[in-house]
Amino acid sequence: MNNQIKQNFLIVFGFLLIFALKTSAQQPSPTPILYSEKTLNELKQIQRAALQSDYAYRQTAYLSNNIGARLTGSLQAERAVQYVAEEMRKLGLDVRLQKLTVPHWVRGEERGELVEFDGMARGTTQKIVLTALGGSIATAPNGLTAEIVVVNNFDELEKLGRKNVEGKIVLFNNKFDKQLEESGNGGAAYGQAVAYRGGGAIAAARLGAIAVLVRSAGGSQNRLVHTGAMRYADDVTKIPAAAVSFEDAETIAYLAKMGTVKIKLLLTPQTLPDTTSYNVIADLKGSEKPDEVVIVSGHLDSWDLGTGALDDACGVAVSMQVPYLLKQLKIRPKRTVRVIAWMNEENGSVGGRTYAKEEDAAKQFAAIESDLGATHPIGFQFAGKIEAMPFFAPLTKILSEQGARLSQRQDEVGQDISFLTDKGVPSFAPMFDTRTYFNYHHTAADTFDKITPKELAEVGSVMAVLAYGLANLEQPLPR
Amino acid sequence: MNNQIKQNFLIVFGFLLIFALKTSAQQPSPTPILYSEKTLNELKQIQRAALQSDYAYRQTAYLSNNIGARLTGSLQAERAVQYVAEEMRKLGLDVRLQKLTVPHWVRGEERGELVEFDGMARGTTQKIVLTALGGSIATAPNGLTAEIVVVNNFDELEKLGRKNVEGKIVLFNNKFDKQLEESGNGGAAYGQAVAYRGGGAIAAARLGAIAVLVRSAGGSQNRLVHTGAMRYADDVTKIPAAAVSFEDAETIAYLAKMGTVKIKLLLTPQTLPDTTSYNVIADLKGSEKPDEVVIVSGHLDSWDLGTGALDDACGVAVSMQVPYLLKQLKIRPKRTVRVIAWMNEENGSVGGRTYAKEEDAAKQFAAIESDLGATHPIGFQFAGKIEAMPFFAPLTKILSEQGARLSQRQDEVGQDISFLTDKGVPSFAPMFDTRTYFNYHHTAADTFDKITPKELAEVGSVMAVLAYGLANLEQPLPR
Repeated sequence: MNNQIKQNFLIVFGFLLIFALKTSAQQPSPTPILYSEKTLNELKQIQRAALQSDYAYRQTAYLSNNIGARLTGSLQAERAVQYVAEEMRKLGLDVRLQKLTVPHWVRGEERGELVEFDGMARGTTQKIVLTALGGSIATAPNGLTAEIVVVNNFDELEKLGRKNVEGKIVLFNNKFDKQLEESGNGGAAYGQAVAYRGGGAIAAARLGAIAVLVRSAGGSQNRLVHTGAMRYADDVTKIPAAAVSFEDAETIAYLAKMGTVKIKLLLTPQTLPDTTSYNVIADLKGSEKPDEVVIVSGHLDSWDLGTGALDDACGVAVSMQVPYLLKQLKIRPKRTVRVIAWMNEENGSVGGRTYAKEEDAAKQFAAIESDLGATHPIGFQFAGKIEAMPFFAPLTKILSEQGARLSQRQDEVGQDISFLTDKGVPSFAPMFDTRTYFNYHHTAADTFDKITPKELAEVGSVMAVLAYGLANLEQPLPR
Repeated sequence: MNNQIKQNFLIVFGFLLIFALKTSAQQPSPTPILYSEKTLNELKQIQRAALQSDYAYRQTAYLSNNIGARLTGSLQAERAVQYVAEEMRKLGLDVRLQKLTVPHWVRGEERGELVEFDGMARGTTQKIVLTALGGSIATAPNGLTAEIVVVNNFDELEKLGRKNVEGKIVLFNNKFDKQLEESGNGGAAYGQAVAYRGGGAIAAARLGAIAVLVRSAGGSQNRLVHTGAMRYADDVTKIPAAAVSFEDAETIAYLAKMGTVKIKLLLTPQTLPDTTSYNVIADLKGSEKPDEVVIVSGHLDSWDLGTGALDDACGVAVSMQVPYLLKQLKIRPKRTVRVIAWMNEENGSVGGRTYAKEEDAAKQFAAIESDLGATHPIGFQFAGKIEAMPFFAPLTKILSEQGARLSQRQDEVGQDISFLTDKGVPSFAPMFDTRTYFNYHHTAADTFDKITPKELAEVGSVMAVLAYGLANLEQPLPR
């Protein structure tokens, strides 16, 4: 290479280098700015405040201890509506009650006694611990007595056929998958078990059964019964439906292997006329886009056996805490942060359904619901377009500081907000370690003592970071 | 040293050596022969058979599932007496029923409702899960309504004095020591808690209380109530007594900090006239010393909430299994092995008391009782002279093969045999890991499913090895 060529080469090389550097600098950044520096700093501030706050803990205590069970249609549910509305007004939020027409089912007396089986002492009965499933019709006022036929699943029932089922009581003895639960996937175990609670009455009645019992759809082995919603079909006879405890299911199944087992079953629940109740809706108005709403929510109604601390006073409480923290820190979101305490999640979902019908989905920027208790959150779940996932990375980075480093895409993340999810509203939920939740929820043991202040504070932080992050997101979310 | 001296030295040394060896060989052995080689081999055979047997498991199943709760005086208790007697006759044992006059207390309706407290929704009540303590008198037929005063212990009650207690209901909110339980010492935790169940009514009534509630004396946190015996004193007004669940105690204590808490309490138990029942006594006669008796026992009565699988069907079952195994192996003990299924351990101990009164203590060579459930046994407990401890070393060696390598001296090792212990009868019990027992016993969750076949078989082995070892011991036990 001579000097001239060398010089020319260096000149060309220099130009190429300058061009390359310039192009690189001018090219649009591969991701747009998602959160301003100010927002990111505020998020860290919010997280710190949430992890130290006991506001949600105190609210959970009030809802579960002072008000107690809040079954839709009950006076306690009513009182809870008033309480949350009042607390949100105290924070200076715009509060409205969204009117709902809700079912009004009330539990009555419930009793089960084995009155005949092999080895039984004449003249005695053996008590069976059971509870009516939500929505069940009553037995005759004096109860009904019939033989129990035990099946483990729908297939076994079908195989038995009408001739072995007619006039009898079917016990669905489907075992809750404790192993699945203990692996951290309690939700999947519950999903399997709950099919019998929901659909057992229809399947049994189709073959002529006169009542249905289901093994409790939860992991408890403490003689606890698990209530919850069940369904009837218009074209199938309605039959009384109750859950028996794990222990009682085991006993009945054991005895049935030896011969005939008869039970006397008494259930006196009532379905009263529909009544009026409300979603509580409380807005902290956005400074820049007040018409775009980020929902933070939990459901205010509960089952009636426990005091609904886990399901879902804590979800309502961590939602109420979001505007509380923002007010405390004097931070105003760009979009509106809307607290919703949903009514009637448990037995009809009238609250979620009505909101999705009456509100403009386009204005719902995002919806968050917490309804899986309050153990240590390991991240959050998201239902929506996969293209939106990268938008959450900065939030995940902040949440990973508290051990909530996962984000998982799901089809659905919360019953009440599922109606919005269906309309394309990006939906979120804290993601939990659910190893214990399904031992308590829908049972008498869903009580305030199950809440750990530290873990609840962590849930509150996930809710607040997600909510404020979404409210201040600089870009629209793909939907 | 010259050669002559050397030679003499060796001769002297040699004599000394011979003398030393001879003396050593002639000296009596420091411990006498305790068990013949034959017995030791048989013990290993018995252990193997016990660890493989499901006899006790099947008997536990029958007592808890087929017969169910066996409260003293009930038809079920009666049926259990007949059943065990019949089973022992099937084994070819000499069976007799020892007649007893026993108390007959029956549970009635029981209901608790908070009817006034801070934050309560007007017109509502909040359900309190409670159960009458065994022996409690009833409230008025319509119940009684009064303010609850919460104390953590007897000292706090005394400090409050009559002016703060009179006309009220005392809640003893003594916390069960979960940490102590989880360290493996559930018995100690129970011992602390049970003082309030036993003595609470007297202490509260002395200061004018009209009823007493005690926090359940167990480790459960699943809305389970724990019943059990309570005491009245002749010179103190009898007041109704009930246990509330852990959760309800927590709720009441929480609300009481905010202001007045009133409860409506209804209990309708009845104390019926004393009735007749029996200890079941079944002998496998000894071949050499038939008049010397080794008792293997558990108690047949149970509380009425669960089916008494852990407390104490399993104890009766592992006792029944001892002669079953000996018959199966065609091994006959030198002393008589006597199975006793005690009646009325739970609320009066009439069975144990009567036996100790009517039988000659001198003929009771040893007594074993299993009454702490059926988890993995870690060895055995012994009440008696410390000089007897070395006698058990060969048994411990055998039991250590199954991980039951401990022996521990205690003042008392079982309620029913304590009356014999007091008369100097060497007394034994399997020693357990009690981390879970006190979560279930005396509650509705004491049911058959809590029994693990493998662990029950291990308990059966401890019972059989102890019983046969004692029955064939070549020496009298120091007493």
